[in-house]
Parts: sequence; structure tokens; C-alpha cells
Amino acid sequence: MRIGVLTAGGDCPGLNAVIRSVVHRALTGHDDEVIGFEDGFKGLLDGRYRKLDLDAVSGILARGGTILGSARLERDRLREACDNAKDFSREHGIDVLIPIGGEGTLTAARMLADAGLPVVGVPKTIDNDISSTDRTFGFDTAVGVATEAIDRLKTTAESHQRVMVVEVMGRHAGWIALESGMAGGAHGICLPEREFDVNDLVRMVEERFSRGKKFAVICVAEGAHPAPGTMDYKKGAIDRYGHERFSGIGNALAVELERRLGKEARPVILGHVQRGGTPTAYDRVLATRFGWHAVEAAHRGEFGKMTALRGTDVTMVPLAEAVTELKRVPADRMREAESVF
Amino acid sequence: MRIGVLTAGGDCPGLNAVIRSVVHRALTGHDDEVIGFEDGFKGLLDGRYRKLDLDAVSGILARGGTILGSARLERDRLREACDNAKDFSREHGIDVLIPIGGEGTLTAARMLADAGLPVVGVPKTIDNDISSTDRTFGFDTAVGVATEAIDRLKTTAESHQRVMVVEVMGRHAGWIALESGMAGGAHGICLPEREFDVNDLVRMVEERFSRGKKFAVICVAEGAHPAPGTMDYKKGAIDRYGHERFSGIGNALAVELERRLGKEARPVILGHVQRGGTPTAYDRVLATRFGWHAVEAAHRGEFGKMTALRGTDVTMVPLAEAVTELKRVPADRMREAESVF
Amino acid sequence: MRIGVLTAGGDCPGLNAVIRSVVHRALTGHDDEVIGFEDGFKGLLDGRYRKLDLDAVSGILARGGTILGSARLERDRLREACDNAKDFSREHGIDVLIPIGGEGTLTAARMLADAGLPVVGVPKTIDNDISSTDRTFGFDTAVGVATEAIDRLKTTAESHQRVMVVEVMGRHAGWIALESGMAGGAHGICLPEREFDVNDLVRMVEERFSRGKKFAVICVAEGAHPAPGTMDYKKGAIDRYGHERFSGIGNALAVELERRLGKEARPVILGHVQRGGTPTAYDRVLATRFGWHAVEAAHRGEFGKMTALRGTDVTMVPLAEAVTELKRVPADRMREAESVF
Amino acid sequence: MRIGVLTAGGDCPGLNAVIRSVVHRALTGHDDEVIGFEDGFKGLLDGRYRKLDLDAVSGILARGGTILGSARLERDRLREACDNAKDFSREHGIDVLIPIGGEGTLTAARMLADAGLPVVGVPKTIDNDISSTDRTFGFDTAVGVATEAIDRLKTTAESHQRVMVVEVMGRHAGWIALESGMAGGAHGICLPEREFDVNDLVRMVEERFSRGKKFAVICVAEGAHPAPGTMDYKKGAIDRYGHERFSGIGNALAVELERRLGKEARPVILGHVQRGGTPTAYDRVLATRFGWHAVEAAHRGEFGKMTALRGTDVTMVPLAEAVTELKRVPADRMREAESVF
Repeated sequence: MRIGVLTAGGDCPGLNAVIRSVVHRALTGHDDEVIGFEDGFKGLLDGRYRKLDLDAVSGILARGGTILGSARLERDRLREACDNAKDFSREHGIDVLIPIGGEGTLTAARMLADAGLPVVGVPKTIDNDISSTDRTFGFDTAVGVATEAIDRLKTTAESHQRVMVVEVMGRHAGWIALESGMAGGAHGICLPEREFDVNDLVRMVEERFSRGKKFAVICVAEGAHPAPGTMDYKKGAIDRYGHERFSGIGNALAVELERRLGKEARPVILGHVQRGGTPTAYDRVLATRFGWHAVEAAHRGEFGKMTALRGTDVTMVPLAEAVTELKRVPADRMREAESVF
Repeated sequence: MRIGVLTAGGDCPGLNAVIRSVVHRALTGHDDEVIGFEDGFKGLLDGRYRKLDLDAVSGILARGGTILGSARLERDRLREACDNAKDFSREHGIDVLIPIGGEGTLTAARMLADAGLPVVGVPKTIDNDISSTDRTFGFDTAVGVATEAIDRLKTTAESHQRVMVVEVMGRHAGWIALESGMAGGAHGICLPEREFDVNDLVRMVEERFSRGKKFAVICVAEGAHPAPGTMDYKKGAIDRYGHERFSGIGNALAVELERRLGKEARPVILGHVQRGGTPTAYDRVLATRFGWHAVEAAHRGEFGKMTALRGTDVTMVPLAEAVTELKRVPADRMREAESVF
Repeated sequence: MRIGVLTAGGDCPGLNAVIRSVVHRALTGHDDEVIGFEDGFKGLLDGRYRKLDLDAVSGILARGGTILGSARLERDRLREACDNAKDFSREHGIDVLIPIGGEGTLTAARMLADAGLPVVGVPKTIDNDISSTDRTFGFDTAVGVATEAIDRLKTTAESHQRVMVVEVMGRHAGWIALESGMAGGAHGICLPEREFDVNDLVRMVEERFSRGKKFAVICVAEGAHPAPGTMDYKKGAIDRYGHERFSGIGNALAVELERRLGKEARPVILGHVQRGGTPTAYDRVLATRFGWHAVEAAHRGEFGKMTALRGTDVTMVPLAEAVTELKRVPADRMREAESVF
Repeated sequence: MRIGVLTAGGDCPGLNAVIRSVVHRALTGHDDEVIGFEDGFKGLLDGRYRKLDLDAVSGILARGGTILGSARLERDRLREACDNAKDFSREHGIDVLIPIGGEGTLTAARMLADAGLPVVGVPKTIDNDISSTDRTFGFDTAVGVATEAIDRLKTTAESHQRVMVVEVMGRHAGWIALESGMAGGAHGICLPEREFDVNDLVRMVEERFSRGKKFAVICVAEGAHPAPGTMDYKKGAIDRYGHERFSGIGNALAVELERRLGKEARPVILGHVQRGGTPTAYDRVLATRFGWHAVEAAHRGEFGKMTALRGTDVTMVPLAEAVTELKRVPADRMREAESVF
């Protein structure tokens, strides 16, 4: 079998572990050949690829990033890809394509599959917001990085009687904020799934100060939004550089809390450190398992599906099922977090 | 409600996170009182306990160990405990006991429950070998510590053309060896679940050297055992200090490999560093959730059960079901690991 | 001897290690008594202090922050302190005051010493910019945190062909940027000590892309400043929230580079994570040594001095000498860094 | 200029950082050529080397081990090397050799220099025991690994009322034990520089237990030795596998303490994890500076010397001076550590 593999979308610790696992399983478990397309779907369209043997994936298990590169694909070129889907197999001589990516990539993968290309997807997102799989690799690393930051900020906040607002990734789903907030022992957690009332946060901080705990750490997802009327904040607002991104909810909330509380409040925007670097052991294991099972599924001819973790098992689920809606933090998971503030 | 909590058995990162979570949920979610028994069941028998309020559990989320202490209970005293089980509720005025512990503790918990004490258990083991729960807290931390060690040993092995044998914990189940071996990219993994043939390891190392990879790392669980006749090793053997524990499989295997390969082989016995210190974010979240659900179960009157992770949910399972047999690494999980050697 | 100790100024990993060391040395090496003033000089003025015995400092060696709290002192109150300096000894019955702090604190310490209070200072700053000492504790931790961030950002930058701009602490001295930039292998380092020409950075990035290295990481101190006319940036500029601090050089430089290069550039502002949390081993050792020597100096009657690292020795230097000018990165240290871009 | 570089002796985090720095400085600061000999002096003798350009050293700054490999050289072959020293320059066309290594390597370097080969040495040892330099790279990483282990063991020891004996590296000098013991807050530290009396340790532990601190951690260098008559221990003793190395002082001391104290004592032998893996920021900076200065010294014609850290400066010292005697822990450094037990 000749397998094509590519990585697309934002960076995510564990991508290299999947690539390595696909190559190892294909070459040592079967007698396959593996080629890697460069820069995501662009490499597929442009025919830019290289052969991947054991040496090519040596030493990459613990390395962040992706040795194949990644890039976003414009909508037009995706359509072009779908029109030529059937030809790819012939052109590059591949029997199956294993795209590793997030929601956008998996949607593209599904369209390619529908258009006739044998595809086995591997889900990837640090946001953990893909339906049909219990967890995605990269998420554990992101939560670990955010938790370590909260750990560090807590001692500073306590010594200096401050409020710290930590903004973590999560535009549409608040998994990173939820888990790093719980793990770091944040005193408030704001998620995109539910508008927060800034008055609740003010009350919580004041209550803490009144009982002698003269500090607080609040963990806020970048996509969290205040309830209308509770705070002046427009997500789409543009800063003086003409960029929205430096004026997110973290900064705004710190300013608002400082104003209302009359106490020092400092924002920390974690940003891209959450999606780079060495993956945790958990993510390496999950990524390795996903790669293994993707190759096995290919050999069983289970196309149009993606790998998924269900409990302790890795199974295959239809791509169609996986990308219909985002996996959001349910109300009962929020409740679990609330009691430890 | 008045809740008694205790920690028993070996150390495990996340114990303090459970205690903290129980106290927070009980005090802020309900209007409960919580007392903590000292040194496990001994404190229960001797009536040594202290009241746990929010201040008592402040700052312990990320701390290893247990603020309540832990100790093993002799068989006789356990019988004594069972005989007096019903009296404990009256004596200490507790409505429920939440013991946090491993297989032995949960068995004791079950006996106490059978004897009439309202009990809600919380499973704990770095070995991840308790049936009925997908994972236990502490395991992720242990795997993380072992993986970091393997990462470090790999570069040394490679630079100096050596074989490194890393012995990790796992007397009866090989989960730590399996996952840290996969995450660290070990070239051989030996588990208690299946006797290993030292000839296979020799062949693997020689094959690696012959294709220019002049090093190898082998990850071996302390309970792994060579197939009879393949290597001289008696688990029960006594070293010159009269102690078995310094002459485990890690040392023996390194000696054997060095002898057969004619290459330097070095053992590293990780030991107790795997079960101490700051828990990972994953373990803190799981421990916090277990504590939360234990309190909720107590309020619902679900006694004789323990918390368990099933997929992404924390549910309650009968203690009886949980402790009947150890959860061992199944054959298909071993297969997943084998292709990446 | 009765020793008073206090911590003042911004947070710095290792403060607790100094406190612990002072207490241990004073109590076990001598037969002293130690009291700790709360919230820096405020506690001294308000007479808020508590006795510190071995139990009070148990378990704090590796903990960030300061168990004594810290606060800034207004100029007026400092004058008040100096006016009453001699009375403090009598009032609180202290024979010596050991203030642990940065430039401001040590200047205050010197004024108190001049006013007649027996003082032995301990220098503290993550910025490493205090003259007369080779290094200060806290610096190594800050560099470690920044380096880990750069490590993570590098893999992301590489996979996604991006420029990453990391802003680290350092308002007046660029030590953190210099060492984390060198340790992380940043491709450009901008320090407060020398205006940078944004054209140089543009050229460097373009040169890298042209030889196939399609990414770059630039490490910039918060106090770095572009050469006039090379880039539109006013340090004092106010953002739409009325706050200067969210519009620092890191954000501005990323915007500028993206505009000029026509490539994605992303800023990451590390902020307060650099000054909190567990100190590195290096910082714990240095802090412990400083505490030890401060007590010894007090017993020798060497007042008006502070501890300092010179080579491998801890010695005492006059406070007057230490606070006259900031220790800035010299030109030859910059040159060492430049060749590895 | 044509520069030859090689790495010899045991593994040490930072070796790759030196190699990278030499190449960067030589190629971008000057117009040099660099070749790397494989497997230490063996490559020099056998003429095995490869050209090192910027690509060859890309991405290795943070990687443990050495891309050039390392090996011990037999005495005979060293003599052979010295006899041919002058020819090497001609044969391989090198103008200078930069050997990176420990005491043995530097002695060999000195002999080669005496025999007429232009040599600039770079000192390397995790043990920090080379005279003439304040610190060596690799040491900080080793101390960091050991400290993290002690941190972890402390919480376990405390929860389970145990004595933990941690054996760290250091055959002839106790720097790692001293600094990791201080940083980890060990309650006893045993160094090769001074025989320890096991009775002192017993007393210390008993005193701790008696005042309610029912645990202790003892940090012992592998080369530490009990005072004659205080404990049965022969360093050269052979275990049942015919190997001395599994029966070191750590195991023996744990057994002895358990016997005398009647309390659980557990040994942890850290071993090779201390000398592998990613170097700390400190070590990367020092290694990078050493590489830079070695190239500069070569261009100034300062042969027969090695790089050395003195205070904050990197200077050049004669090889002859550096290798005459080991740098041992002086008495005053031991005293500093003793008060914090």
C-alpha cells in the first residue's frame, strides 16, 4: 500500500508523533510505502511530497511542530482539490490519504472522501472541541502549559495582593480554560459556552479579600464574553494598530476589575506557547495510537472515517459525524469546577 | 452531613487534590462538615482526626503527598475495624466515610461497607490497575516522570552508543511501562503481563546497531519476568544486604544484555520519584472531579460504591465490582506499542 | 540577637528561600530570634510582624512568592521611616534589620542605615541589574521560564513559517532578553541598552527565508526601543483602555514586521509568569547562601552592607556602592550573542 | 582558518550547544571552515570527520548528547596520538583543534598541545570539578534533575513517614550533592570530601521525628564514604552479578539507616538521568559562550589554553593549570549547607 500523509491547520503538539507512528506501522507492521505532502493540502495540489522512511521520522516523537509543514488552504483551492480528488490517487500513486488536522481539515477530508479519494482522518486540535472523540492530542500539552503558568501566577498574586487574569486559548469551546482553571486552582473560570457576569467575579474577589485571601486568579478563555450590560467590551474592537488581537477579553477584564475593585489587576495572555513545543506523555501516546489505528483502518478499507478515542479504546468514526458540531463544555462539567473556587 | 475522609496505601500524586475537592464541595456546595482521619485507617480506629475547613486545604492542590498522612493497616486491625464498623458512625459522628486508596484500601472499604458503615470510595493508584475505571489519578504523573527520564537517557545512549535499561514501577500491571515506553520511544518494552524473551531484545538491539542506530533504550516494569530458560533471573533472589529490592529485573537485564551484546548496558531504576511530587494537570483535574462526585454520591446515598472515570464521565461503580480483578494491559494495547520500536 | 526580616518590591522566585535560610542559620547556627515584618516596610512602620521559628519556614524553600507579603512604600512613608529609624531597634527590639529587595528597597535600606538602623541587605531582582553582585536570585528562574517559552514558540514558528516576537521583562537592563535569547536560540535580540534598527531585523528574517529557514524568533526586552525614524513607536503611548501596558514594544514590533515582511508575525508577551512560582535549583542555592551570609554579617556587625556573589564566593559589599548605578548588559556580552543568530 | 572540533568523555548536557556556537562564530564571525571528528579522539586518529556548516548544527542547541559522538580513548592510542600530533594539522588540514571534554580529555589536550598541535580546550563535566573555572556547563542541568527528584521524594517521605536516601553523581567531588541537597532542602548531605559518621545521620533523623517532622531526605554523592567503624561498607564490594555498581553507598546507607532507626528507609539511585537530555538555560548560555570564546582564542593564537568562567567573564587559562588538581567542595561551602538541615 502507498500511503500519503499531510498535516494541516494550526500547530498542535503531537503532530510529529502521528507522522512517526504512521510510518513505523506502515513500514514495519505492513510492507507499505509512505509519502508526506508538504504544507498541508497545498503540497497535495502542487505535488510537493517526499518519501518517509524510518530515518526520516527518527528523533521526532518528542518534537513540537510538524516536519511536513502546515498551511491554510483557501476555499477556491479546496474546491479545486475536490474536483481532482480521484486523480490524486493516480497522480501520486497513493492508495489512501491520511490528513491530520482540525475541524476545517476534517471537513475538507470529508469532501475529498465524498469526491472519491480514499481518506482516513486523524483529528487534531489543542482545543479538544471535536465531536466523536473523548480527547484530542495537543490538548493535554496546552492544559499543562496553562496550568504551569497559573501555578506561577498564584504565588505572585498572593504575595502582592493582586488579581491576575490569565487568558488561555479557546475561541468557541472552553476546554483549556476549564481544565487549566481546575488544575491551577483558579478562583474564577470564564468560558465561551456561557456569558459571564463581571459582577459575580467582583463579588467573588471581594469575598476572598474579606476572609483574608487577598488575591485571586481568574482563568478566561479567549472566546469568553461578558453578559450584555455588565461590562463594556466589544470582541470585534480594533486597537490602535488596526489589530483586534491585542485587545482581547483578558486585557479588558483586567482593566475592568482593577477599576471596580480598586485593587491591582494584571492580565497575562498566554498565546502561542500553548500550541508549541514538546508534547506531554499523554499526547504522545494518544498521537502514536491514532497513527497506528489510521494505518490499520486503511488496510481494512475503512475510508471516510477518522480515529477517535472512546474510553480507553481507539475506534473509527465517520467523518460526517465528527464535523457536524463542535464539542462544547457541557453544563455539568462547569458545575464540577465551580465548587473549588 | 458530616463526612470523614482518609488516605491509605502508597503515595500517589493527586491525593491532596481529592481532599481539597471533597472539602470545597462539601462546604460550599452543601452545608457539610468534613473531618480528616490521620494515617489512614489507623486514625479511624484510634479516633485521631481533625476538622478540615477551607483554610486547612488552602494551597494543597498542586502539592504531592497527603496532608492526612497514610499508613498500611495490618490484617488484624482491619478485622477489628470491620467488627466496629457500625460504631464509627456514632463515635465520630460521621454520616459517611470517604476512603481514598488503592486495591487494598478499596477492599477494606468494601468490607466496612458490608459491615454497615456508609462508604464512598475514591480509587487511587499510580499503577492504573484498578478495574472499572478508565484511569486513576497519579498514573499520568508517574508516566510523565518516567517519560522525562527516558527522554534524557535517549540522548545519552545515542551519544555513547549504549543500551539503557529503565526500570519503572508496575508489579502486576505494566501500564506505566507501556505508556512511558511509548511516549519516550523506548525500543523495547517488557511488561508483567507477558514473559519476555531476552533473545528478542538482543536481536532488536543488534538489528538497530546494524542499520546504524547504535543505541537502544529498553523500558521494563519492575514486575516483568523473562521467559524460563532465556535468562538467569530469580525474582525472589536476595542481595548481599539481605534485601531483594536492589537486585530487580532492571539491574539483571542490563547485566545480561551487556554480557550477550558485548556492548555497554546501563540500568536506571527510577523508584519512588514516580510516586511523589506535584501532580500533572490531568491528575489534578481527575482527582478534583473524583472528590466532587464522591460528595455528591454521599448526598444521594449511593454507598458501597466508588468513583470511576468512564470515557469523559465520572460515574459510580459498586466497590464489589471494582476490586475483583486487577486491570492488566490487554494484548491489543501491547500490539500498538510494538510497531514503534 | 533579635533579627527582623522583610521582603519588599516586586515578586521574585527565591524570597522564601532567603527567609528560610535566615531563620535556620539564626536559630540553629546561633541562638537568635527572628521576626518577620509583613508587607515590606509597611509592616516595619506599622509594627506588624510575627515570630518566625523553624515550623514557620517549613516547606517554603521551593515555593514562589513570599510568606511575609510585599508592598511598595510611598516616598512620604519612607521619609517617615528614616526619621524613626533609630527607634525601630528599640520599639521592636531588633538588633538588625535584613531587608530583601531590589534597587528601591536597597536604597531605602541605605537611607535607614545612614539614619542609624543596623541593616544588612539582601539584593533581589529577576532583572539581574544590581551592581556589585555577579547575579541575583530570581534571574535564573525568569530566564528559564522565558527560554522554555522560546523553545515552544520555535517549533510552532518553524511549522507555520512565522515570525514570533517574544517580549520578556527588563525595563532598563536586558539581561533576561540576552540570556533567554541565547538559550532559546532566538534569531534576534533587542535590549534596552542599545536602540535597535528594525531594518536589521527585516533583513535578518529575509535572509533566513532566502536560505530555506522559513521562520524566525525575536526576543525583545520590554524596555527595548527602536532607533528614531526606523519604526513608528512611542513607548508612552496609551491604548484604548487608557493603559500603556498592553501596547508595548512586543506587540508594536510584531505589527511592524508583519507589515514590512508580508509574512505572519505574532507577538507573545510573557509578563508576570516570569516572576512567580518555584525557583530553579540555582536560585534556591543562591538565595539560601545569601540568607546564611546575611546572618553571619549581622553577627560580625557588618552593617550598611549587602550580600553579593563574586565568582563563587558570597561577600559583603557596601549598600552605597551597590545602588549607585544599574548593571547594564555590556557591549561584549551583546557581541557574544550576535554570532548565533 | 580550518577548525577541528571533537567531544570526548562522558555525556554532558550542553555539548551540542558548544559545537553549534563554534560553528556559528567561525562561519559568521570569521570566514572559517569547521570539521567535526567523530567519537572523540578516535575520529582524530582514524581520520573520521565531517564538515560542519550552519545546517549541520541547526536545531541542536537544546538537544542533549553530542551529534559528534563520544568515546573513551585507550592509553595506548593516546600515546599514538601524541606521537603524531604534529601530523594531524597537515593530514586533516586543521589549524586548530577544539576538544570539548573533562579532566581526561583536557589532560590529553595538554599532551597534544605539548607535542605541537595547536589546541584550544573547552572544559566539560557535570561534576563541576575542574579547577580554574567557576562552573562548567552540564552541572546546572544535573543539579536541576537531582533537585526535582528530591522535591518529589520529599512529599512522599513526609506522607509516609519515611527516610529517603538519594544517591547523586560525584565520585571525587560532591558539588552535585551539595547544591541539589541545598536546593532540595535535604536534611543530610554526604560528600566525598569528608567522611560522614552514620551516627550523626541517625541522630538527626531521630531529632526530627522527636519534634514531629516524621521524615527525612538524605542526599549522598556516589563517592561519599562513611568514617571507618561507623558502618559496614566496602566501596569495592562486588554484588552477586559480579558488578560493583549496583551496590553503592546509597543502597548501603538506606539499609543501614533502616536497621538502626527501625523506620522505613528507601534508596533512590538517580544515575544516568543526571547527564542526559535538554540542558538548562544556564548551561546553554555558558556552553554557547565557551564555544564563542574558543574560536576567538584560536584566532588570537592563544593555544594550549582552555575557556573558563571567572565571575561573569569568560577568560582563557592554561591547560596546565586547569588539570593539576580536582576542584573539591571547600569546608566553608559545606558549612553553609549545614544550617538548613
